[in-house]
Amino acid sequence: MRILLVGAGGHVGRAALEALQGRHEVLEASRKGDIPVDLRDESSIRAMYEKAGTVDAVICCTGSVPFKPLGELSAEDFRSGFEDKVLGQVNVVRLGMDRVADRGSFTLTSGVLAREAILTGAAASLANGALESFVLAAAPELPRGLRINAVSPSVLEAAPGYFDSFPGFTRIPSDVLGQAYVKSVEGIQTGQVYELG
Amino acid sequence: MRILLVGAGGHVGRAALEALQGRHEVLEASRKGDIPVDLRDESSIRAMYEKAGTVDAVICCTGSVPFKPLGELSAEDFRSGFEDKVLGQVNVVRLGMDRVADRGSFTLTSGVLAREAILTGAAASLANGALESFVLAAAPELPRGLRINAVSPSVLEAAPGYFDSFPGFTRIPSDVLGQAYVKSVEGIQTGQVYELG
Repeated sequence: MRILLVGAGGHVGRAALEALQGRHEVLEASRKGDIPVDLRDESSIRAMYEKAGTVDAVICCTGSVPFKPLGELSAEDFRSGFEDKVLGQVNVVRLGMDRVADRGSFTLTSGVLAREAILTGAAASLANGALESFVLAAAPELPRGLRINAVSPSVLEAAPGYFDSFPGFTRIPSDVLGQAYVKSVEGIQTGQVYELG
Repeated sequence: MRILLVGAGGHVGRAALEALQGRHEVLEASRKGDIPVDLRDESSIRAMYEKAGTVDAVICCTGSVPFKPLGELSAEDFRSGFEDKVLGQVNVVRLGMDRVADRGSFTLTSGVLAREAILTGAAASLANGALESFVLAAAPELPRGLRINAVSPSVLEAAPGYFDSFPGFTRIPSDVLGQAYVKSVEGIQTGQVYELG
């Protein structure tokens, strides 16, 4: 398959890349990569798809959200998380619906905060919950046998800087994380959220 | 208790009102009510709390979201649903955290589309999923024993205009819906999503 991996530079993107490269042709898109993309800019997303050409799968491992105590999160903080992590990934789907090959797939990335709380995580929880419900709702409306799933990991073993913020949370090894993207890309499932940890 | 009911004019708001009035003092806020409020305007929300004075519970039954086939939903449509249904209710919590009496409660309103798909419902699903994860994340960060829950109903028996869009979905009677708000307001639970149907 030809796979477009958006956000290839992060921990999650690298885990997906390691799991898929070799068996597939993986095109890497990122803010400053060979295929540059800014997910807050629809014209940039269109240019990304133009440069990539037809692909069989799109993986999106992007999005940042402000982490602050609930009482300090402003409306602008919630809006920023929505625009970056939620709408960025939604736009990859919206603008890719006519680009991806028949029976191709989208795989988005949410996270454990959709279903569990941590201190300072309210805007992140909101964003992750939004993405997961979008995935289950979008799946049956996609045309041409296209599929969509989300990978929803707990804190990553490769990101020890986050361990203190996720006390007692299961730490997800990169190979386990990567296999969730393999399952979505190579399998037949749609509308699923793969909860890791 | 003194209860501030935001969005008292809709089907959901009326169900909450009928269940709570009599035993409690219910103050009604709506776009054009005695206590006027526009949830897209933070200064309007502040003025609402100013006019209401100290309350023991806030119920929010507001928010509209565009319904369109997935391929026709624009970024602006998703943004509109977020700003109105999600951020509107989040702002009621943010700006009310210092206003509601100790051990008081917030009760938000999401909906069945957080967990089930209907045609044209992707933006609504996204908004409802966002609210439900926000509630579980915000609950443990609230100060002074404040609580927060969400009521997440299927299509309402009182709204037959929606029946065709929700084929086979359980239709929720107004009294059943109203009791979910009673449970949130008069009980001790927090971080809960009351799934009706």
